[in-house]
Amino acid sequence: MNAKEIIAKKRDGGELSVDEIEFFVLEAAAGRIPDYQVSAWLMSIYFQGLSREEAACITRAMIRSGDTLPRAGEHPLPVDKHSTGGVGDKVSFLVAPLVAAAGAPVPMISGRSLGHTGGTLDKLEAIAGYETAPSPDDFVRCVRERGLCIAGQSDRLVPADRLFYSLRDAASIVESIPLITSSILSKKVAEGIGALVLDVKFGKGAFMSEKDRARELAGWLVDTGRRLGLKARAYLTDMNYVLGRTAGNALEIRESIESLRQGPDATAADLREVTLALGEGMLVLSGGAGDEAEARGILEAVWSDGRAWESFRGMVEQQGGDLAMVDDPGLLPTSPYTVDFHAPRAGRFKGLHARPVGDWLTRSGGGRLVQADVIDHRVGVELRVELGTSLEAGEVVGRLHLREPAEDEAELQASAASWIEFGEPRDTLVHEVIG
Amino acid sequence: MNAKEIIAKKRDGGELSVDEIEFFVLEAAAGRIPDYQVSAWLMSIYFQGLSREEAACITRAMIRSGDTLPRAGEHPLPVDKHSTGGVGDKVSFLVAPLVAAAGAPVPMISGRSLGHTGGTLDKLEAIAGYETAPSPDDFVRCVRERGLCIAGQSDRLVPADRLFYSLRDAASIVESIPLITSSILSKKVAEGIGALVLDVKFGKGAFMSEKDRARELAGWLVDTGRRLGLKARAYLTDMNYVLGRTAGNALEIRESIESLRQGPDATAADLREVTLALGEGMLVLSGGAGDEAEARGILEAVWSDGRAWESFRGMVEQQGGDLAMVDDPGLLPTSPYTVDFHAPRAGRFKGLHARPVGDWLTRSGGGRLVQADVIDHRVGVELRVELGTSLEAGEVVGRLHLREPAEDEAELQASAASWIEFGEPRDTLVHEVIG
Repeated sequence: MNAKEIIAKKRDGGELSVDEIEFFVLEAAAGRIPDYQVSAWLMSIYFQGLSREEAACITRAMIRSGDTLPRAGEHPLPVDKHSTGGVGDKVSFLVAPLVAAAGAPVPMISGRSLGHTGGTLDKLEAIAGYETAPSPDDFVRCVRERGLCIAGQSDRLVPADRLFYSLRDAASIVESIPLITSSILSKKVAEGIGALVLDVKFGKGAFMSEKDRARELAGWLVDTGRRLGLKARAYLTDMNYVLGRTAGNALEIRESIESLRQGPDATAADLREVTLALGEGMLVLSGGAGDEAEARGILEAVWSDGRAWESFRGMVEQQGGDLAMVDDPGLLPTSPYTVDFHAPRAGRFKGLHARPVGDWLTRSGGGRLVQADVIDHRVGVELRVELGTSLEAGEVVGRLHLREPAEDEAELQASAASWIEFGEPRDTLVHEVIG
Repeated sequence: MNAKEIIAKKRDGGELSVDEIEFFVLEAAAGRIPDYQVSAWLMSIYFQGLSREEAACITRAMIRSGDTLPRAGEHPLPVDKHSTGGVGDKVSFLVAPLVAAAGAPVPMISGRSLGHTGGTLDKLEAIAGYETAPSPDDFVRCVRERGLCIAGQSDRLVPADRLFYSLRDAASIVESIPLITSSILSKKVAEGIGALVLDVKFGKGAFMSEKDRARELAGWLVDTGRRLGLKARAYLTDMNYVLGRTAGNALEIRESIESLRQGPDATAADLREVTLALGEGMLVLSGGAGDEAEARGILEAVWSDGRAWESFRGMVEQQGGDLAMVDDPGLLPTSPYTVDFHAPRAGRFKGLHARPVGDWLTRSGGGRLVQADVIDHRVGVELRVELGTSLEAGEVVGRLHLREPAEDEAELQASAASWIEFGEPRDTLVHEVIG
């Protein structure tokens, strides 16, 4: 058995055996298969695909390539949520403390922004002092003592994924559903969870804009997750428009803290809908609630009575973050340079197009074009009106928070005005539930 | 323009522009594109193919990645022959001096054995002192002064091919007709030729056993060669059985020298047929003869009157080889360990199956399984009877030349006896001429 033969077998459309997959993944992760063979193998997978069982097998081997965290309890099962990425997507900051406050441990290992979608860790770092890179022991302790932890991946967790992902990124092999599946699930299983809810976004602001592709990915994630022993469910959610009232790192943390403090009724309706749907799924899968209705009741209660906020606050405390910012989100970094933008005509406000907002954030210092870019947490967009509002021409719709004074305010306003979509508000953001 | 985008474009089936191809090939050859991107690009080409124009463009860029040799004259055009590899294929040692003696310069850059097919340079090194790695200047001088030179590729000739070939070999990306085409033609054009004859072999002993695949490759080679400004023609020749009377390095040199000294009538009929067909093509394409009939007349004359042998002898002298061995091939290295093998039954002798002979040579020290293997030039097989002979059961058919005494002579004889094919002799080995 050698790497060259395994590449040739996949190149010719063969199904790889468990032994072949384990050999390739573990030897590659150990640095004993050169990168040019690994990238050729990944490209062969891109073209020839994987069977569901091969995908599960690769994921298992990827998990075995590094350390794993101990499972944080059995009843309810530790549960996590993964999103394929959006604009204004701060659901993690709500749903993790909601579910933790409802009794299910939430060990949530998250990533950073790249391209037009935001990154959970970047947002958390808007809170001064928040440690996004705890040791595995500290991560486990935070979950045990506070019920949740949101942090980054340690170097020792799934090294095969770091290798494969960096090669896929460099060699244009990203858009492979089986490889996306193994990348997501390997990291999640290694966290020590028993259940996983997947927020698979579609629409113009999503990584996969087409709903059919998103549905295909959701099916792969749920099926492969189950082969790996997880309880798994996916939600197809609409990511055509910015989710909630803000997009941008500090602004999204501010919106999340305010939502946790003020409860579901004070939360933007679109954000509330997605948060509760995913939270219900998490609580039911974990065994923390018998059905969705029960779960919703529990979640609304812990959201309304401040327990979810306390849970979030406890995590920030454990991770060394500045609690003053949680207690007064006005203390979060804010920019003195703001520009309001206006409705170009009268009409009903449907939403802010997610993709141009995400692209603007990236260009303007609020995201990353390349890994090395440094983020300005203050940069962002906030809505000044709710979705569904009837706007008058010239009415203020939102406010841009800038890194530095605008060079050409009128041009910026015109650009932002073009992000406004008019039309009937969406009935629902959660289009399908899979699994 | 960057490597990642160029990989993605080919991965998605796009046609690469001249600029994109030149950028990728030249940057890769200069070591400025990492190997994992190069192998992913090559694998994308494996799956998506290349247009004929892309293949020509890649070949041009590969040539530009290194030095090229000056063209060795214009009338007749310098001409070369390339074979896709066989067992017992010593045509180069006959046809190069034949064509050179007929007046067309033959700068022939050749390769080494790998796998079951033999390598021209390995065979030449059976002649003590023969320099297979002359400097480019010495190579050019040999062609100018002696009319021909057969030698290996300098490090500075087509470095992109060395890079691509090593990655294709390591990452199972060999069997791509457009990439095979660019690899062959880049080296040939860089030699400074104006015409090229291609011996594309099919059958069980060939690199491409299927005739349809061989025909497809032949079409690519001729078409792409013409786009590169060469006069080009391909011959589809039968490589099911060992060509000529010997297979093995020193034995093939001995057979070649004897053939050059004794003339076409003393040469094995199958070897003579292929040699004259390819030689005619070379001489006509080079402009050294007006048509095939004229070319054949010239070639038979220089073969019969010893001028071709003188031409070969001059090359060996120029390259520092031991002329005593050319004058008396009995001085070439021979093994004291030989085993005769016999016809297992009566019947007409059609040939020795090329593939098992090639595999036996490789295993027995006469070839290479991996680049680092050292060849024993003495190892080989010689026929003791002509093709078409009516054999009696138990009659000696051939003799094995071994590196060391046989461990189990009877087993070796039984194995060699299984290489014997019975049946009507083939009418012809040259099945099709393309171009």
